[in-house]
Amino acid sequence: MATIPYKIYLSEDEMPRYWFNLRSKMKTLPEPFVNPATGEYCTKEDLLPVFCEELVDQELNVTDTDIEIPDEIRDFYKMYRPSPLVRAYCLEKALDTPAEIYYKYEGSNTSGSHKLNSAAAQAYYAKKQGLTCLTTETGAGQWGTALSMACAYYNLDLTVYMVKISAEQKPHRRAVMETYGAKVIASPSNTTNAGRKILAETPDTNGSLGCAISEAIEVAVTTDQCRYVLGSVLNHVGLHQSIIGMETKIACDKYDIKPDIIIGCAGGGSNLLGLIAPFMADKIHGENDIDFVAVEPASCPTLTRGRYALDFGDTGKTTPLIKMYTLGSGFMPSPNHAGGLRYHGMNPIISQLFHEGYIRAKAYVQNDVFEAAVKFARIEGILPAPESAHAIKAAIDEALTCKETGAKKTIVFGLTGTGYFDMTAYASYNAGTMTDYIPTDEDLQKGFDSLPEIEQK
Amino acid sequence: MATIPYKIYLSEDEMPRYWFNLRSKMKTLPEPFVNPATGEYCTKEDLLPVFCEELVDQELNVTDTDIEIPDEIRDFYKMYRPSPLVRAYCLEKALDTPAEIYYKYEGSNTSGSHKLNSAAAQAYYAKKQGLTCLTTETGAGQWGTALSMACAYYNLDLTVYMVKISAEQKPHRRAVMETYGAKVIASPSNTTNAGRKILAETPDTNGSLGCAISEAIEVAVTTDQCRYVLGSVLNHVGLHQSIIGMETKIACDKYDIKPDIIIGCAGGGSNLLGLIAPFMADKIHGENDIDFVAVEPASCPTLTRGRYALDFGDTGKTTPLIKMYTLGSGFMPSPNHAGGLRYHGMNPIISQLFHEGYIRAKAYVQNDVFEAAVKFARIEGILPAPESAHAIKAAIDEALTCKETGAKKTIVFGLTGTGYFDMTAYASYNAGTMTDYIPTDEDLQKGFDSLPEIEQK
Repeated sequence: MATIPYKIYLSEDEMPRYWFNLRSKMKTLPEPFVNPATGEYCTKEDLLPVFCEELVDQELNVTDTDIEIPDEIRDFYKMYRPSPLVRAYCLEKALDTPAEIYYKYEGSNTSGSHKLNSAAAQAYYAKKQGLTCLTTETGAGQWGTALSMACAYYNLDLTVYMVKISAEQKPHRRAVMETYGAKVIASPSNTTNAGRKILAETPDTNGSLGCAISEAIEVAVTTDQCRYVLGSVLNHVGLHQSIIGMETKIACDKYDIKPDIIIGCAGGGSNLLGLIAPFMADKIHGENDIDFVAVEPASCPTLTRGRYALDFGDTGKTTPLIKMYTLGSGFMPSPNHAGGLRYHGMNPIISQLFHEGYIRAKAYVQNDVFEAAVKFARIEGILPAPESAHAIKAAIDEALTCKETGAKKTIVFGLTGTGYFDMTAYASYNAGTMTDYIPTDEDLQKGFDSLPEIEQK
Repeated sequence: MATIPYKIYLSEDEMPRYWFNLRSKMKTLPEPFVNPATGEYCTKEDLLPVFCEELVDQELNVTDTDIEIPDEIRDFYKMYRPSPLVRAYCLEKALDTPAEIYYKYEGSNTSGSHKLNSAAAQAYYAKKQGLTCLTTETGAGQWGTALSMACAYYNLDLTVYMVKISAEQKPHRRAVMETYGAKVIASPSNTTNAGRKILAETPDTNGSLGCAISEAIEVAVTTDQCRYVLGSVLNHVGLHQSIIGMETKIACDKYDIKPDIIIGCAGGGSNLLGLIAPFMADKIHGENDIDFVAVEPASCPTLTRGRYALDFGDTGKTTPLIKMYTLGSGFMPSPNHAGGLRYHGMNPIISQLFHEGYIRAKAYVQNDVFEAAVKFARIEGILPAPESAHAIKAAIDEALTCKETGAKKTIVFGLTGTGYFDMTAYASYNAGTMTDYIPTDEDLQKGFDSLPEIEQK
C-alpha cells in the first residue's frame, strides 16, 4: 500500500457519475410528507408549484440507488471537485493520539462550503425546465453564496432572503452574493405577506431560517417561471451531497482506509447525510460497524433534545408536514449563537436513522467549538467555518479518548467549509466576549407549543 | 496525450525539491545592495542584524541554481501544495477565443494567496536559528495572514505592522491574524521612532508599506532574538515563490502545454518572479520566446512610469539601497486604490529583466480590473483578489486579441489569491462608486524627489 499523502485528490475520471440515494437501502423508510390541508401524503402535484419537477422526482424517489449526475452538472463540479480527503498528520501529532484522523474538505470553492454541490444541481434543473428565476433563503450565508454562483453560471435571476441578524453581521457575505448578481433582502422584510405578518408580531426579531423560507416560497409561487430552492433538510439536497460520501468512499477504498468513526455537523442534515450515505448503506446491511456521530450546537439541539414529530419546515407554516426531529417551527435560536446550524428541524432520513439508533448525536456550546476551531486553524492551517468546527470538536474529543485508551481508531470527519466570513464571531471569541447559551426546558417548550395540532397530544 | 483536466494536480512526489534561483542563469546580474552610509556594496554582515542568516545567504547567492527545500518546509507545503494549474475552459468558451487559457491558482489556503510559500520558509529559518520573535509589515493583509499562519505552526511570536488604511478597511483580515496569535498594530503607530516621526509630519496619513516596513525593522533590530521578514521585493522571497513556476513547468511538461504568454500581477514582484523563473531561464538562453507580461495598477505604476534607480526600500530610509524600478520611497498611492500592489519599488531581478526587455509591463485602472474580476468570478467560479485581477484583465485582453487575429496562443497567468477580504472594494465597484486614479507627472515628481541624493542628478 502506498504511503497516504497529506491530501488525497481523486482524478476527474474517478469522480462519481452517480449520486447515492440512501433511502433505497433503508429497512424502514422515513414517513412521506403530509399535506396539512388534507392530512394525506403529499403527491408529486402538491410539490410542483414550489419545486422544479426533476427535484420533486428525486425527493419522492425511494427505490433507485444510483441517480445519474448529468454531464452539465459534472462539468460544473469539475471546476472545484473532486475535493481532497486530507490526512490530518499535523493534528494527530499535536494531539499525540494513536488515532488516524482524516477530513473531507469541502471549503476550497468561493462559496466556502459543500453547499455548492446542491446549488449546482438545483440551478441546472431549473434552467433545464425553462425557468428564469429562483428564490431561496440563507442563514449564515453559505447557501446563498453557493446558489448565487450557480445562478450566475446558468444565467438565472435569484432573490435571496437572508436572515436579518446574519445580513447585519455579515455585510461581506451579502456583497459576495451581489457580486454574483443576486438580489439580497434581509428577512423578515416587507416584500411578502409572511414577512409583514412576522414584522407586525415581532418588529425587533432577528429573523430565522424558518421565516426566510416562508418569504422565499411566497415569492416563488406568486412569480411566473420561478421556483423555490432549499439548501438543506430535504432529501434531494442530501442526495446531491452524496457526492461527498461517494468521493470519500472511493478515496478510502483506494488507500485501504477503514473508518471506525464518521463525524459530521448537523444543521439541516444534508452534509451529514451526503458524507455518510454509502457507508451507512453498508452498516444497515451488516457490512461495517461504523460509529456515526451527528454534532449540533447546544443552543439549537434538534437531535439531542428535540421531538420526532410531524412539523412544518418554515415559521409561516406553509410547507408540507415533515416527519423529523424538530424543536418546533416557532423555535428561534438565541441571537448569541454565531454561524449556521440554527434550523429547528432535521433531514427526514437522518431523523429516521437517528431514531433507529444508527447514528448518535452530540451537542457542544459554542466557546468549546471555537476553541477547537482556533486549535485546528493553527495546527492544520485551515480556518474552519463555525458549523464545521462542531465536527472538529467531536473529532478531537474522539482522538483524545483514543489517546487514553490506546485505541488505534480511524476517524473521518466532514470539514464542510471555511470561516472567512465569520470573523466577527472569531473576534468575539478571541476577545473573550463570546457567550454560551443552553435553552432551558421552558425555552424548548415554547418551540414545541408551535408544533401542529396533530402532534399536540 | 491525455485530455487536459480542468485542474491539473501534481502528486506530492512530483512537488519540486528545489527552489529555482534565476540569477544563476542571468547574463547580467542585478546590482547588489548598496550600504547608504558607505556607498559600498552590502556585505553579509551588514544584513545579519535585520534578517535571518540563511535568508541573507539566499539573498546573496547568485551562483547556485537549485536551492534545496528543507523537508520541514516541504511538510508545511504539503498542507496546501501542490497547487492546481487550472484550464479555464469556461472562460475560453465565454470569450469565444481560440486561445487556451491556464491559471496557476495559489488561493486555496487560508492566507488566501501565494504569500504562504515564503512565510513558511522564512518562519522555518527563523526557528532553526533559535529566534523567538519576528516582525513584519502588511498592506492588503495577505502577507500578514500568511506569516501569522507560519508563526503559529512554528511557535514564534509575531508583530505585524499593518498599513493604517488597510487595518481600518479590513478588520476581518486583522481578526484572522489575531486568531493565528499575531499582534497587529496599525501603522504609522506611536510604538516606534519611525512611526512617531511620520505621525508628527503627517498626522492624517493613511500609512504606506514603506512606512510599515520602517516600523517593523526598527522593532526587529532593537529586540533580542528577533528579526524582520519581508513578504515581497527581496530576491530570497522571489526564490521561495519559484515553487509556483517550478510546479507550473512540471505540469506544462507533463501535459505538453507550451505557453506563448505568461502573465503575472506585479506589486513587489515576488509572485511574478516565482511564476516565470524557470521559463525565463530558458528564454534567456534562447530555448523559448515566451512573452512575459507584468501587470500593475495605473495608480502605482512602478514599471511603466518609474525610474530604474538606487532607492531605499522603506519610507524611513533605513534599508540598504536597492537598484530597482521605483517611484521613490516617498511615493504614497492614492487612498482610493483598493487592494495591494501599492509598493513604490520592484524586485531587483524583475527590474533588471524589464530593463533588458525580457519582460513587458502593462498598467490598468481599477474599475477595469474589477470589471475583469467580476466577469471571472461569475464564469470561473473563483472570486479573485484585486491584485490577481490585474493578471486576469491582461489575460482576457490577450485572449480577445487572439479572437480578433485567430491566433491559437497558449496563455498562462498567475491567480495569486482570493478576494474574500476585499468585499468592501467589490461592494464599491458593484455600487458604481469606485473611482480611478492616474497620478499626474507632478504627482510622480514628488515621489522622485524622495530618491536618495546619488540619484538626484
